[in-house]
Amino acid sequence: MNHPAPAATPTDFAAWMQVQLARVEQALSDWVGADAPAGLGEAMRYAVLDGGKRLRPLLVLAARQAVAAADAHDATARAGHDEAALRAACAVELIHAYSLVHDDMPCMDNDVLRRGKPTVHVQFGQARALLAGDALQALAFELLAPDEAGVPEPVQARLCRLLARAAGSSGMAGGQAIDLASVGVALDEAQLRHMHRLKTGALLQGSVMMGAACGQADAAALAGLSAYGAALGLAFQVVDDILDVTQDAATLGKTAGKDAAHDKPTYVSLLGLERAQAHAQALRHDALAALAATGLPDTRALAALADLVVHRAH
Amino acid sequence: MNHPAPAATPTDFAAWMQVQLARVEQALSDWVGADAPAGLGEAMRYAVLDGGKRLRPLLVLAARQAVAAADAHDATARAGHDEAALRAACAVELIHAYSLVHDDMPCMDNDVLRRGKPTVHVQFGQARALLAGDALQALAFELLAPDEAGVPEPVQARLCRLLARAAGSSGMAGGQAIDLASVGVALDEAQLRHMHRLKTGALLQGSVMMGAACGQADAAALAGLSAYGAALGLAFQVVDDILDVTQDAATLGKTAGKDAAHDKPTYVSLLGLERAQAHAQALRHDALAALAATGLPDTRALAALADLVVHRAH
Repeated sequence: MNHPAPAATPTDFAAWMQVQLARVEQALSDWVGADAPAGLGEAMRYAVLDGGKRLRPLLVLAARQAVAAADAHDATARAGHDEAALRAACAVELIHAYSLVHDDMPCMDNDVLRRGKPTVHVQFGQARALLAGDALQALAFELLAPDEAGVPEPVQARLCRLLARAAGSSGMAGGQAIDLASVGVALDEAQLRHMHRLKTGALLQGSVMMGAACGQADAAALAGLSAYGAALGLAFQVVDDILDVTQDAATLGKTAGKDAAHDKPTYVSLLGLERAQAHAQALRHDALAALAATGLPDTRALAALADLVVHRAH
Repeated sequence: MNHPAPAATPTDFAAWMQVQLARVEQALSDWVGADAPAGLGEAMRYAVLDGGKRLRPLLVLAARQAVAAADAHDATARAGHDEAALRAACAVELIHAYSLVHDDMPCMDNDVLRRGKPTVHVQFGQARALLAGDALQALAFELLAPDEAGVPEPVQARLCRLLARAAGSSGMAGGQAIDLASVGVALDEAQLRHMHRLKTGALLQGSVMMGAACGQADAAALAGLSAYGAALGLAFQVVDDILDVTQDAATLGKTAGKDAAHDKPTYVSLLGLERAQAHAQALRHDALAALAATGLPDTRALAALADLVVHRAH
């Protein structure tokens, strides 16, 4: 999709995605654990490499593509923004990966299976899992603020700002705290939505806004992208809840049915399966409408990712 | 010490320190846990407020003072750099605080007492302690990258870079991993120094360099400040090892003698008490010599902090 094309087709998107995934995997492999002490680097790489759908990195790169037109004829600006976007793509994945490592620990969800492999604390012990998660969060910010990579420092600062907010107590970590406090508590839909908006939504929406920060976008474009990210983030969680009851562990690559087992409120327990499925479709529609409102010339990859999120099987 | 004075006296420094500590305590109280869900914010504030020597924040602010002469006559630049330094001072303290929360957990040091109070996981449970630590790390970077505080974005980017490197796998987290792997292992002095250079030294030296990034400093000044930070960081650890065997828990505010109990190598176990004390004095001398080599006009607060580190009783 680096060439101008009049319309998106599934083939276009599949080819684009394949190229982007290869870039992300290579960059993660180059950057994760490279200068860590052996035992720590090994746990960090285990947590990040060879697994994961890389949805968040793809959102960053698709949003970067949507705002790329403004610097298409300035090779230096383009190279700096492309490098920034690749770093941002890896950084959001590191935040996601660290949250899974800590979330799986015995004092949290106590999960032993993740992406079809033993979880990090099962493989390396709890102490090393704790440290690996901590080091992955620091590495995310280190990637965003390189001293010699051609990324303008104002872009670096904005990326750090967006990621810190998405990851912290008013974002992902805050949502996890609400989730923790909600076991066995009857949440209504508004409370459930608030919890998920922080727990998973903030980082998904943050991924979109970080991609948008790697280029030029006016206020209308940013508002549209933000609305897209919010709808997609919620859709992701609704579908997650649906898959938790409709798929088995082999398909999911993690323990199935665990929400019900932990007596955690979900969209399925709240709305029933059929209305939850309709809700996911409505959110997909909202996401696509928000994209149309951005006025940006090429939002095809973002649109395809909304489809992917709603129609995925794991 | 905001007024020009010809020489440092203990009274000068005490007054300066009192003013700076009040600024830091107020800022931490304003910023920590402010927009976190209740249970999480409470644990974050418990971990950070009302305790701690604030050595790292003082190092940031003392280094900022050492480079402040360059913008003394530009009110806008001065205000931006002062704000940046206060944020950096709080950010390094949040990284330090989160590392203590995680380090005290049962899967790490399993400590129940810290700064004379029950540790965070004892008070709030392990899950919330884990999340509070994670959220404190994110908040550190959030403080460094504000969108409306007059801090130039290039300064924000440099502060994020310095903090991420000091906190991550080639800094503090890396040192903790080496420490973890060294229990019951006979380290020689070079290995012990490498471990501490990462575990505690990186963040102490990083504090100095972050302060220096809040202003203008030439290569010679940066090299001198870096050498000062390295010597002070090591001195801090040598003194820590000495205090662990010479002080009781009431004075330390934490469990005493735990290094020996955990069969961890220390400077005292390696050098003996007397040579360890001489080593601390030699490092203090190195730190002061490095300051003299910076060519900076006012390094009195940094010099006084080196004295404080070596002569402290807890």
